[in-house]
Amino acid sequence: MRDTGLLGRLIQHLRCLPGVGPKTAQRMAFHLLQKDREGARALAETLLQAIDRIGQCSRCRTLTEKPLCDICADPARDSSLVCIVENPSDVWIIEQATVFKGLYFVLHGRLSPLDGIGPGELGLDQLERQLATSDIKELVLATNSTVEGEATAFFIGELARKHHVQASRIAHGVPMGGELEFIDSGTLLHAFNGRRTI
Amino acid sequence: MRDTGLLGRLIQHLRCLPGVGPKTAQRMAFHLLQKDREGARALAETLLQAIDRIGQCSRCRTLTEKPLCDICADPARDSSLVCIVENPSDVWIIEQATVFKGLYFVLHGRLSPLDGIGPGELGLDQLERQLATSDIKELVLATNSTVEGEATAFFIGELARKHHVQASRIAHGVPMGGELEFIDSGTLLHAFNGRRTI
Ligand SMILES: [Zn+2]
Ligand SMILES: [Zn+2]
Repeated sequence: MRDTGLLGRLIQHLRCLPGVGPKTAQRMAFHLLQKDREGARALAETLLQAIDRIGQCSRCRTLTEKPLCDICADPARDSSLVCIVENPSDVWIIEQATVFKGLYFVLHGRLSPLDGIGPGELGLDQLERQLATSDIKELVLATNSTVEGEATAFFIGELARKHHVQASRIAHGVPMGGELEFIDSGTLLHAFNGRRTI
Repeated sequence: MRDTGLLGRLIQHLRCLPGVGPKTAQRMAFHLLQKDREGARALAETLLQAIDRIGQCSRCRTLTEKPLCDICADPARDSSLVCIVENPSDVWIIEQATVFKGLYFVLHGRLSPLDGIGPGELGLDQLERQLATSDIKELVLATNSTVEGEATAFFIGELARKHHVQASRIAHGVPMGGELEFIDSGTLLHAFNGRRTI
């Protein structure tokens, strides 16, 4: 394989995309350079802008280029209901699959003491301040149903209890060990409607 | 789906990559922004450089950032043997799969009169000048074995005959209707060794 030169470097860098192996990276590079240079330029420029401008929402920690994300800034959302998720992508998935009208709080991970991920890394101090000072009445715990996701939900449930806030766990239909990302939207809608207080 | 904003635009632009649908684009965007901003920046910058600098080799028309590609510039390659392929990616595939030591000529397509793709679009005037003026002894026709690929090979075979240059067609093992890109390297090696004069 001749992977020296700019074309080889492009193919190499395309492999930083998840799920893209050497053959796919080759196909992508040739496609962009032969058939869609305009699209490729727009992609590269948007990616640079996104890297520079997209940070975390100051309230819910999801990815946004604004100080406050669109959901947190929307006065029509019910701020008494906060859904806890592991990843910003989970927010998108839930928005697409369900009719949830509350706010979110994004952990950017799950408790994993062995990897050095504790409550501080997940922003739980910030969540606790919100529990103490805002009008939150219920936390919907939508962490993944893996062992660590369940432990994280349990831990945050305890925080809620401490602040006399109700906590519920999405439950029905999410298969054990499953990641939200790979669940069909019907199942996820069902799981939301079937959440139970913990 | 909230696809306004920079994040939504990034997801949209990622879909210009071949084989990337909305879900994969979402996953890619979140992965880059959450876990690999450094890789994302390198990818974006390399892509912009590639768009600006990569053009066609003046001799074989493959993609390269130099006036003459590495293969054409390599004095160890046998310039009496020229392999005709439809796409620059085919050059890579053949280089990886076979022991071919000649040069290439890249058509960037195949004859398709209904789509307005004639000999001029494929650079066949340039190929004919090379047939007339250089030391080419054999053209190896490695266009895809689709109807249009076969017609293109036949047409170029006639050009070769006109200039008293031998033409051979890779044959054994490439399934009818198959694209080179999706053929395993063993089959392709066999097809090269089993090429026949046409
Ligand atoms: Zn927010
Ligand atoms: Zn060349």
